[in-house]
Amino acid sequence: MPTRKLKIIPLGGLGEIGKNMMVMEYENDILIIDAGLMFPEEEMLGIDLVIPDISYLLERREKIRGIVITHGHEDHIGALPYLLPQLNVPVYSTKLTNGLISVKLKERKALVGAELNIVSPGDTITLGKFKVEFFPVCHSIPDAAGLIIHTPVGIVVHSGDFKLDYTPVVGKSTDLSRLAQLGAQGVLLLLSDSTYAELPGYTPSERVIGEALDNTMANAPGRVIVPTFSSLVSRIQQVIDSAAKYQRRIFIVGRSMSDTARMAQRLGYLKAPDGILCRLDELKNVPRNKVVFITTGSQGEPTSALVRIANRDHRHVRINRKDTVIISATPVPGNESLVARTIDSLFKQGAEVLYREVAQVHVHGHGSQEELKLLLNLVKPKFFMPIHGEYRHLNLHAKLAQSIGMTKENIFVQEDGDILELNSQAAKITGKITSGNVYVDGMSVGDIGSVVLRNRRMLARDGIVVVIITVNRQTGKLIGRPDIVSRGFVDTRESKDMLDNSCDVVAQVLDHSGNRTVEWSFTNTKVRDSLNKYYYEQTKRRPMILPFMVKV
Amino acid sequence: MPTRKLKIIPLGGLGEIGKNMMVMEYENDILIIDAGLMFPEEEMLGIDLVIPDISYLLERREKIRGIVITHGHEDHIGALPYLLPQLNVPVYSTKLTNGLISVKLKERKALVGAELNIVSPGDTITLGKFKVEFFPVCHSIPDAAGLIIHTPVGIVVHSGDFKLDYTPVVGKSTDLSRLAQLGAQGVLLLLSDSTYAELPGYTPSERVIGEALDNTMANAPGRVIVPTFSSLVSRIQQVIDSAAKYQRRIFIVGRSMSDTARMAQRLGYLKAPDGILCRLDELKNVPRNKVVFITTGSQGEPTSALVRIANRDHRHVRINRKDTVIISATPVPGNESLVARTIDSLFKQGAEVLYREVAQVHVHGHGSQEELKLLLNLVKPKFFMPIHGEYRHLNLHAKLAQSIGMTKENIFVQEDGDILELNSQAAKITGKITSGNVYVDGMSVGDIGSVVLRNRRMLARDGIVVVIITVNRQTGKLIGRPDIVSRGFVDTRESKDMLDNSCDVVAQVLDHSGNRTVEWSFTNTKVRDSLNKYYYEQTKRRPMILPFMVKV
Repeated sequence: MPTRKLKIIPLGGLGEIGKNMMVMEYENDILIIDAGLMFPEEEMLGIDLVIPDISYLLERREKIRGIVITHGHEDHIGALPYLLPQLNVPVYSTKLTNGLISVKLKERKALVGAELNIVSPGDTITLGKFKVEFFPVCHSIPDAAGLIIHTPVGIVVHSGDFKLDYTPVVGKSTDLSRLAQLGAQGVLLLLSDSTYAELPGYTPSERVIGEALDNTMANAPGRVIVPTFSSLVSRIQQVIDSAAKYQRRIFIVGRSMSDTARMAQRLGYLKAPDGILCRLDELKNVPRNKVVFITTGSQGEPTSALVRIANRDHRHVRINRKDTVIISATPVPGNESLVARTIDSLFKQGAEVLYREVAQVHVHGHGSQEELKLLLNLVKPKFFMPIHGEYRHLNLHAKLAQSIGMTKENIFVQEDGDILELNSQAAKITGKITSGNVYVDGMSVGDIGSVVLRNRRMLARDGIVVVIITVNRQTGKLIGRPDIVSRGFVDTRESKDMLDNSCDVVAQVLDHSGNRTVEWSFTNTKVRDSLNKYYYEQTKRRPMILPFMVKV
Repeated sequence: MPTRKLKIIPLGGLGEIGKNMMVMEYENDILIIDAGLMFPEEEMLGIDLVIPDISYLLERREKIRGIVITHGHEDHIGALPYLLPQLNVPVYSTKLTNGLISVKLKERKALVGAELNIVSPGDTITLGKFKVEFFPVCHSIPDAAGLIIHTPVGIVVHSGDFKLDYTPVVGKSTDLSRLAQLGAQGVLLLLSDSTYAELPGYTPSERVIGEALDNTMANAPGRVIVPTFSSLVSRIQQVIDSAAKYQRRIFIVGRSMSDTARMAQRLGYLKAPDGILCRLDELKNVPRNKVVFITTGSQGEPTSALVRIANRDHRHVRINRKDTVIISATPVPGNESLVARTIDSLFKQGAEVLYREVAQVHVHGHGSQEELKLLLNLVKPKFFMPIHGEYRHLNLHAKLAQSIGMTKENIFVQEDGDILELNSQAAKITGKITSGNVYVDGMSVGDIGSVVLRNRRMLARDGIVVVIITVNRQTGKLIGRPDIVSRGFVDTRESKDMLDNSCDVVAQVLDHSGNRTVEWSFTNTKVRDSLNKYYYEQTKRRPMILPFMVKV
């Protein structure tokens, strides 16, 4: 291999769903693609958000020419408020994406000083040695882009998140002609979305939902409530269109839903006939069978409008037996039980509930197997790297590529941090850099490490016992009885005797080792071990034990 | 209504999946159907198992004539080891079910003194005023039964967990003729399984899996590993049959899998050609393409054989690039991410992995919509009560019953604790008894209440801060600086200054209120409030704060 090589390094989004971030490096130029967040997994107790570790980038800050964003979903833009202040480089995206980024940055007070640039689909920008062309792709948010990156060693195509929808509701179809043209010209590397590599066939068009919506709007005897993602602008458009057809008025409920709808309307991505969108104070004047609510809460988020409605806890909206709820979204992995509970509560209120298991009320935003193969076929890359997905998705995507004739040696199933180096002839994985999760918890970013999380898991499982031991500073002898306080361990009234007896266990330990010549750390360990053993015998639980000595 | 009425009271299994338990009461006789457990939900931190609250039964112990068990799954027998010693009544079940109950009771040292009776399918037992006939149903475990209960007010049919499989692999088909006969005779009430009321059509026969198994056994270039449920005896039988066809030897890995297989073989529910089942020490003599492993771990349980294999942590079994894993099970709700991680790890080891998203390697054990309608059609009950399922499943099942002509007034969608009273003419819900969750955590049953769980949730989210304040017993004045210890809150090195400053916050509070006339509880509250405020300002976190005063 000649020395001048292109490096492709994923910092997030490979081997996991979320926190997508990709680095491209050639000599003195670095280009970043996307900067997303991930919602915490079950064992990341108390964590609010997860973002990529960018220590590699911080050491090379002067080389970074900019961040290019493919679309406005949280898993592609959500880390910007945290990372942009550290990196301080320009951001490039399409108009709606840019609107969503501004909203996010403003929320976290990171908008001032940010250099945000709008790029139109089809336009090309130059960032150091890279020329980046945005091409339209269809996804579950309008204004989504894929990227054609002209590099000194060849053309790299990044699919973004995409599906093929020849009849999209809002936005453009994926630009297959441009891709075919590139394929003919010669593409060095394709990076393509693997999220739904498990699904055979084609993802249906968003249009199919129109039918279910129309049916309900026409026939529902009461109000219609449609919870969905606020970023799913095309779905909101479909609800508006269908409501208009059946002379229903629309009430948008929930702050993030109203904010996004207003922004999308202002930028021209959402169109509503005059007078159809109403304020909640106009609700009482509209007959129940002429009302549609569009709300947040499709993920069963405890504080969302839908969940408050389902629990009869919403200030303005009450459900009754004639109402219909259409849950037009899929639970994000991890949210299944929250969503299921919300559906149950709605049924208990007497509502009719349509959800993905029982009706065609949602289609997802990613391409299925045949679409992935079609893209590979058109682009005909020399090398292929499946991106966006857990390891099995990347692996299945790699197999799809093999099934249409690519050789295994030209396919790179990477994990975050793996460095793929290429020139126009060859490619190989040459090493690994530091990458991983940075936790956001409350105000701070990155201070939570494995120790804090391990402690939280221990506390969550069996609680804590604090032991206060007062000893004479001179003699080292115990003064009075040790005090024991527990939280989250046992019912303190029912287990009063057991806890009392554990004081004796501590006293005994101190009797045997309680003199000045013995180190406190030694006594501490002995107290801990004895209590651990005693509690485990008595309860089969292992609370965290925190002995504390007061010398007087 | 005349005064003599039959009461049907669900104590578990309605509005949730699991801990199935149903009470039937007529005058001085109580009959219990099933006694299952439920695995804890995400927010039940540290809890091992959940069983039904039986306080209603404990108050009426002398009326209980026995417990009838429909089949040997955990969600129908799992509470027996905890409840049987309290109730001390006879248990009736079919042979395999009885074997599984014995194993469970023995594990928890509750077998001695238990009165376990075996009933053959088709047999009738008399329990007070109830005559209970066991009829065969097909489910994902052999020897499953439904119940025909002859009561003084009419016949009650309880479906158990069932599906219709006209070509079952092991065990019998659901006895439709007997049900049709009863339907002609007149059935007062049907209780029927709602678990898969969301699924249209028919559940496929277990036979369809044979094809996928045969294909793999014939063509896989290396070892074949099949993780599944140990109770899924028919699946184990299919693996044995398919392995035999292609001259592969079988190694059963994992304690619960071996125990169940041995018991099922002894009772005649599992048949293996001589010499096909091998011990692990014979493994080295068998070529890799002649080996099949049947293992536990289909739910991604961290200590299971499969997960240890996937993490290269198993003493005897290592995977390599030519091996194939067939995950022949569905993740139980809540286990999705554990299973996904296990699949990812297996792919990383280079194995080929077949799982339900990409291959027909599992069919579930419950009837789909058309089967549920068929049962309703045959049994033709006067009244109907959907059982076994979350609220939306019960609701959808009720709608299915309406769709085939039952009137809404004759269908009772109940929740746990609701009392349905019937005579031969009428039925209505007349009240509610105490019911709910009893938590098993370690050794103890039922001592964990809402306070302990709330504390665990609080500890899990933001950790704990313990404040030790030493004061002069006479003057009430602070001696030295307060001591602060935290766990699971912040990185204690990085946040040293912040924690140090919080000592000053405490000292200030004590300066202002630190004299003997002030109550400790008042000071305690003030310390807690001030630290709460300070920590929230500094970190946006709210750890549990535990102030502790030492008087010297």
